[in-house]
Amino acid sequence: MSEDRHAQPAGRATEPLYDVTIPTPTHAERARTLVARIPTGTLCTLALEPEGYPYGSFVTVAFDEGNPIFLISKLAEHTKNLERDPRASLMVAESGADDPLANGRVTMIGPCTRVEEDGGRARAAFLTVHPNAAYYADFRDFAFWKLRVNAIRYIGGYGRMSWISEDDWQAAEPDPLAPYATGAIAHMNDDHAGTMVLYCKAFSRATDLTAATMTGVDRYGFDMSAKTPAGPRPVRVAFASPVTTPDELRRTLVAMAKDARSRASTGRP
Amino acid sequence: MSEDRHAQPAGRATEPLYDVTIPTPTHAERARTLVARIPTGTLCTLALEPEGYPYGSFVTVAFDEGNPIFLISKLAEHTKNLERDPRASLMVAESGADDPLANGRVTMIGPCTRVEEDGGRARAAFLTVHPNAAYYADFRDFAFWKLRVNAIRYIGGYGRMSWISEDDWQAAEPDPLAPYATGAIAHMNDDHAGTMVLYCKAFSRATDLTAATMTGVDRYGFDMSAKTPAGPRPVRVAFASPVTTPDELRRTLVAMAKDARSRASTGRP
Repeated sequence: MSEDRHAQPAGRATEPLYDVTIPTPTHAERARTLVARIPTGTLCTLALEPEGYPYGSFVTVAFDEGNPIFLISKLAEHTKNLERDPRASLMVAESGADDPLANGRVTMIGPCTRVEEDGGRARAAFLTVHPNAAYYADFRDFAFWKLRVNAIRYIGGYGRMSWISEDDWQAAEPDPLAPYATGAIAHMNDDHAGTMVLYCKAFSRATDLTAATMTGVDRYGFDMSAKTPAGPRPVRVAFASPVTTPDELRRTLVAMAKDARSRASTGRP
Repeated sequence: MSEDRHAQPAGRATEPLYDVTIPTPTHAERARTLVARIPTGTLCTLALEPEGYPYGSFVTVAFDEGNPIFLISKLAEHTKNLERDPRASLMVAESGADDPLANGRVTMIGPCTRVEEDGGRARAAFLTVHPNAAYYADFRDFAFWKLRVNAIRYIGGYGRMSWISEDDWQAAEPDPLAPYATGAIAHMNDDHAGTMVLYCKAFSRATDLTAATMTGVDRYGFDMSAKTPAGPRPVRVAFASPVTTPDELRRTLVAMAKDARSRASTGRP
């Protein structure tokens, strides 16, 4: 990834407060997780007029095993473009961060063609995410289209970016905790702020801290921001094994709190 | 626009409750207004690998007289693509509507090239909208780029779409009331609900109504939703002449309320 490093002054290196080799989601997993949660994007096609120009249009989208599905009208520009040349990409971006460039985004590239007989898979995938589209799905100018992803560019915000291979993309699964992460994080920060300090002391090198807040959670572990004398510092704690349901997450966090308390009372690191 | 009409069953025509020939913003004005308010978009370029594919990427943007300005790094994929082939488009989309396809969006197409000596215009335009970018604007891998718009596709939601000519695009100005519209609409609906009913009765054919809410305002007039026995119906009322400042808007609405009250008391239509 050295090619992606900007030509900016080198900052002073700071020793991380946790073992940075513990499991974290791969870029393929992060990217699959991102797109699974966002039902819209920009479809890029090749325009007839002006000839050969890349043409971006807003679309609603759903996924069939990592491949974007669209329900589009033959009257729309992007459909006319695809009928002429199937080369396409879809860009899906997060929103929410104050700094727009801190948001994650994914560009999926590949040929996009009309779905012929597929046993209703594309239709089912699309209408699950966009149930209101059922009322125009049968208009005679509308059809389902699928982009067969064969190259993926992932930008997870500043300094986290890579090309993802087709194999890695297809093998990766969206994070099973993603639909629950916002709620879980709010619950921990609202009701278990003290426990987070114990997690830091027991499971990281952040021992000199006055507070900690959870900033992220995924199947492999969770991220905190620890308030230290040197300012806020990131801390990540891994789960002993991947956690895949909200119930399992709750039980795991309770067990880790018990473990952390026991270590604190015995002085065991 | 018959080419844009979907092949759906014809609905029963309903007589509009207002004179639909009164001034409304042109599509060029609506599109210029939309992009002036949104500082991000999807830049579409032509990829080197996979060869010739359209590549969508997330960008921050500002405008110099209708032409998008970007501050991008030569390390980024889109910049490498533009250095090879300047053909590009930028898609800017609104958000906010519950139905994503009801949001407006604009695709601006044209060649995008690095800004050479321009007296600091591009820089000033960009940093006015993105002041935090000042800290990396001078990194040696960053430069300002400009897309010279020569074709524009506007989709203002369902059933409002067209190609806009370069001349119309350049001549149009963003609506001067747009930055104040949300506040003005909230104020009217919160504090002047009764006045809106008077506006409908005096200045439209919506005479049989129990309530009205403002749904939009622009330099040429304002839009309401009138609660009639037949359900909610759209009503538009034009200003006598274009209104360009919040103060002028306030004075105009007050004068129109006085006029409407006077017509109501005299029974004059």
